[in-house]
Amino acid sequence: MDILLAGSFLEGEQQIWLQALDNALSGHRILPDAHAAQRAGIEVAIVANPRPGSLAGLPRLRLIQSLWAGVDRLLEDTTLPPDVPLARMVDPAMSAAMAETALWAVLSLHRGFFAYARQQQDALWLPRPQLRAEEIPVAVLGLGEMGRTVAQRLAHNGYPVSGWSTRPARIDGVRCAHGPSALQSLVGTVRIVVNLLPLTDATRSLFDADLFACFARGAAFVNLARGAQVVEEDLLAALDNGPLAHAVLDVFGREPLPAQHAFWRHPLVTVLPHVAALTDVHSAARVVAANIEALERGHPLSHLVDRHRGY
Amino acid sequence: MDILLAGSFLEGEQQIWLQALDNALSGHRILPDAHAAQRAGIEVAIVANPRPGSLAGLPRLRLIQSLWAGVDRLLEDTTLPPDVPLARMVDPAMSAAMAETALWAVLSLHRGFFAYARQQQDALWLPRPQLRAEEIPVAVLGLGEMGRTVAQRLAHNGYPVSGWSTRPARIDGVRCAHGPSALQSLVGTVRIVVNLLPLTDATRSLFDADLFACFARGAAFVNLARGAQVVEEDLLAALDNGPLAHAVLDVFGREPLPAQHAFWRHPLVTVLPHVAALTDVHSAARVVAANIEALERGHPLSHLVDRHRGY
Repeated sequence: MDILLAGSFLEGEQQIWLQALDNALSGHRILPDAHAAQRAGIEVAIVANPRPGSLAGLPRLRLIQSLWAGVDRLLEDTTLPPDVPLARMVDPAMSAAMAETALWAVLSLHRGFFAYARQQQDALWLPRPQLRAEEIPVAVLGLGEMGRTVAQRLAHNGYPVSGWSTRPARIDGVRCAHGPSALQSLVGTVRIVVNLLPLTDATRSLFDADLFACFARGAAFVNLARGAQVVEEDLLAALDNGPLAHAVLDVFGREPLPAQHAFWRHPLVTVLPHVAALTDVHSAARVVAANIEALERGHPLSHLVDRHRGY
Repeated sequence: MDILLAGSFLEGEQQIWLQALDNALSGHRILPDAHAAQRAGIEVAIVANPRPGSLAGLPRLRLIQSLWAGVDRLLEDTTLPPDVPLARMVDPAMSAAMAETALWAVLSLHRGFFAYARQQQDALWLPRPQLRAEEIPVAVLGLGEMGRTVAQRLAHNGYPVSGWSTRPARIDGVRCAHGPSALQSLVGTVRIVVNLLPLTDATRSLFDADLFACFARGAAFVNLARGAQVVEEDLLAALDNGPLAHAVLDVFGREPLPAQHAFWRHPLVTVLPHVAALTDVHSAARVVAANIEALERGHPLSHLVDRHRGY
């Protein structure tokens, strides 16, 4: 089978993917680029943030497999073949990485480690009160694969965790709620809100002045999902005038975050360069191989995107 | 029973302890201070870093109960009654707090969060390679109550954990070694060394140039035990000239750490003001009450210190 690898890669990254995919997909031909005659034979496109238009003109295409978990940018490409199944990356290694980042952020906020880092800059020796994990309720918004993994990891480490999603969900050890009005009341009852929602029309600019006003006084906001879900001026206002005490941000409206952006220098903002969960090349290559094998055997494909829903 | 509460407390702290102990020890009289006539009747002394000499001249004393886990400073008091049983604080809430701090330090080192914090100061957007938890072997030195809790918490969160202690130990899911030569080889095989050893003659200045030279290149050192176990100039040299890549320090030779000390401003050192695990007042008061009840009933006392061993 001929497979196209299309994407925007960093220096050397494409070669690493080609090698990992070659190992996982023996017997197939993977083309990092394809001229017109080759394009006629492509049956699968493996994509990582491809240039708009890259997937047009592939008459035999039967599967688009994303190497990224979020497909919101892919779905903005109006030339995307409308009837070809589209699968997103759901990889246990990536969910584990996300759980690590969320747990680190929650531990840092709970135990005051961001505050101690500020104190170190002033050589200030000042112990702060120590609360127990069970005194720090946390809300996880978005209960897909990653949200579920994050919620369970936090619960296993002693935090009382509430989950929220658009549709009803059930997770052992996690109190789950759904729907817009439940969200407004939930964020008022927790110390830390961790956002893992997919970017859709319903979640774009969801975190605005109105929603921040519902947060508990002194609460923290951890955004590990998409920058476009946050009205950045409203977040800054909520940090400066309350109720927010801290924000941990991995994603931004513009990435890389421009050097002059206020987030970089705000004492109550922790900036990460979109690294909460990087795709693990070897693990992801195996996930891709399993889906391509399912395609060949006519078995059901995994992790298909509902294009109408947006994830 | 008359009980003496003796210690060096911060503003308001003594009052909080008195109230918590009163709640947990109904039927007993707790004296924050005792004149000569009262001292004759004291049967238990509850101590938190008391002034040397405070426990001399208590003829009916039957138990010294520390509110601190480490009793190294207490044992330096030459007037300490030699034959009275001495118990240290072993509190599950304190062990949980220590496990949180160790896990936060390990997650921060594993995922590069200290490096990202430095990058934020320069508004530098630069993703770093992401390793999996199973690729980050960690050593926990000291396998008392706290060390065991820390080792298990790290193992439950996916890290391959080795434990080391003076005497042989067994912990589920943790590879255990003991003895001096095992220590030198162990520190060369892990990415992160977490120190939770008690301060004794054998561990004073244990972390010196010779031992740091055995660490793996790029390894990190996390000290959550006692500052006197580290030769601070040797640690700085190991950071500046290798092999160490980072140190997380909660304890120091002099505390509070003097404002002009190099640790405060070293880019590869994270300073905490001795807060890795604070005693939890309410939980500790229950631990004290249980030991005093055992004393009254003639049952075995818990967490007794072997003064010769030093912990």
